[in-house]
Amino acid sequence: MPIQNIGISEIATYLPEAREANRDKKERFGIDDNFLNTKIGVDFVSRRRPDEETSDLCVSAFQTLERKCQVERTKVDCVVVVTQNPDASGIPHTSAIVHGKLGLDENCPAFDLSLGCSGYVYGLSVVQSFMRDHGLSCGLLFTADPYSKIVDPLDKNTALLFGDAATVTWLTRQPVLMPVSFLFGTRGSEWNTLKCVNHVLSMNGRAVFNFSAVEVPIQIRKLLEINGIGLGEIDFLLLHQGSKYLVDTIAQRLGLSAGVVPSNLKNQGNTVSSSIPMLLEGLVHNPAAKRLVLSGFGVGLSWASSYVTRPQ
Amino acid sequence: MPIQNIGISEIATYLPEAREANRDKKERFGIDDNFLNTKIGVDFVSRRRPDEETSDLCVSAFQTLERKCQVERTKVDCVVVVTQNPDASGIPHTSAIVHGKLGLDENCPAFDLSLGCSGYVYGLSVVQSFMRDHGLSCGLLFTADPYSKIVDPLDKNTALLFGDAATVTWLTRQPVLMPVSFLFGTRGSEWNTLKCVNHVLSMNGRAVFNFSAVEVPIQIRKLLEINGIGLGEIDFLLLHQGSKYLVDTIAQRLGLSAGVVPSNLKNQGNTVSSSIPMLLEGLVHNPAAKRLVLSGFGVGLSWASSYVTRPQ
Repeated sequence: MPIQNIGISEIATYLPEAREANRDKKERFGIDDNFLNTKIGVDFVSRRRPDEETSDLCVSAFQTLERKCQVERTKVDCVVVVTQNPDASGIPHTSAIVHGKLGLDENCPAFDLSLGCSGYVYGLSVVQSFMRDHGLSCGLLFTADPYSKIVDPLDKNTALLFGDAATVTWLTRQPVLMPVSFLFGTRGSEWNTLKCVNHVLSMNGRAVFNFSAVEVPIQIRKLLEINGIGLGEIDFLLLHQGSKYLVDTIAQRLGLSAGVVPSNLKNQGNTVSSSIPMLLEGLVHNPAAKRLVLSGFGVGLSWASSYVTRPQ
Repeated sequence: MPIQNIGISEIATYLPEAREANRDKKERFGIDDNFLNTKIGVDFVSRRRPDEETSDLCVSAFQTLERKCQVERTKVDCVVVVTQNPDASGIPHTSAIVHGKLGLDENCPAFDLSLGCSGYVYGLSVVQSFMRDHGLSCGLLFTADPYSKIVDPLDKNTALLFGDAATVTWLTRQPVLMPVSFLFGTRGSEWNTLKCVNHVLSMNGRAVFNFSAVEVPIQIRKLLEINGIGLGEIDFLLLHQGSKYLVDTIAQRLGLSAGVVPSNLKNQGNTVSSSIPMLLEGLVHNPAAKRLVLSGFGVGLSWASSYVTRPQ
């Protein structure tokens, strides 16, 4: 059933300036350039300032949105933040703090969605449904999951990979891009593949890779079949940026070229739920991007894909 | 716009057996029976076992649901957990762990909503919208926010008040009760009224009281006006159980009697997002409960109300 009315009008990103260079960590972790270039594909990971809270990252993304387009704070009628690294240990929800910092209207609903790398695709769907049911017209969907809060700098599996960022997607009734169809998956039996232990991230990279490389292509093929679209008709496939090798593997298994499956790992790392909207941002006003697939996968284990079109 | 199709078929609760008696804390906090009886209205606060995680509370609630009705695990197609005290510091989301422990289908979407005392009302709306958009028919909405994880036993503002519990609401296309209308409010400018500091809860009880006693009656009157219903036509008003004095004050300001505004604070305390579904559970199959209002308020600050009817 195609989903009508509410879609994407604009996207803005906040990427902190500070970087950690992975070349400086080669000795510590006993790795070489080949590992950095072909396996993870990350030269630098982005890092928030110590005084920047998750809500601050969201506010910075919103300030960029204000410079790009006419979004009036007084008209915002829905605020959702996708995060698993909220301010203040999660009480209150980060969306309430963002609501306060932006000075939004008291009639504006606000809630957080706790999801990881599949969170942007889920967020689009949840916000779209919620806005339509309540007749809303100006929604903000934020992603901000600063893993620097929980990454152990001595853990090779995570310290080279995750970067900090935030995005905001502006959803309205006059969309430029329309998510028309979704598929979701959950494998709770493997929940401990990616988890926090005493507030420190622990990841079984091999298990996450094996899961993603198998399940994501299956879900994407099923999504396209449901929508009667061939793989060759897709202009862009925007994959969560788990690692270069994972993105390359999924693209290869689907028979898609690098031009169709862009990457943004190199200068920032895996930004969790922000990776897909950061890729999508540059395509929002690109008329060549008529048919897109978004696919996020990771923490949960959870995966979600959406077919997105450009209304005439 | 009335919301059709998806509504409530059943509710089940899990209330841990262990209790802390507030009479044993009178000396520590310098309080008397009058304070316990008329201000907070709590004799005992419920406490989970140390080995019971948030997901375990959800599973226990689900086991009660299975004893009450024919809910088939293989047919569950949506799982949402409302919590701000998740398992494993929030990674993964608790709904994924519940999904794994219940052995649900891999096509089942799962996500957490981070909201406090307004969370059940929000959760009903988010799940209802999401299920309808995706043509789903068997949803589980859990509430489980064990504040014992973050309450300082030496803090009079919180140690006497908050109890642990979990609930599950089963949503289907053949509902017994139908949430037909919602209103939401957010006052992010006062987000620090109820917050975590270094993983310990801190509450400005007076500020939360003043906010709730003013805004909740306004929202409820507005909700009824939108639906063309008079206050006297409501069979039950189910308020979040902030404290006895707060519930009594809101009821009084609306001119409603105690019979219309039930309470469940006495033997468990304020169970955050579980307080309203615990009240609603006993009314699901009560034909005298034809028109209800649910209203949750607190952490955020956030408040939400729903008008609920009984389909013929």
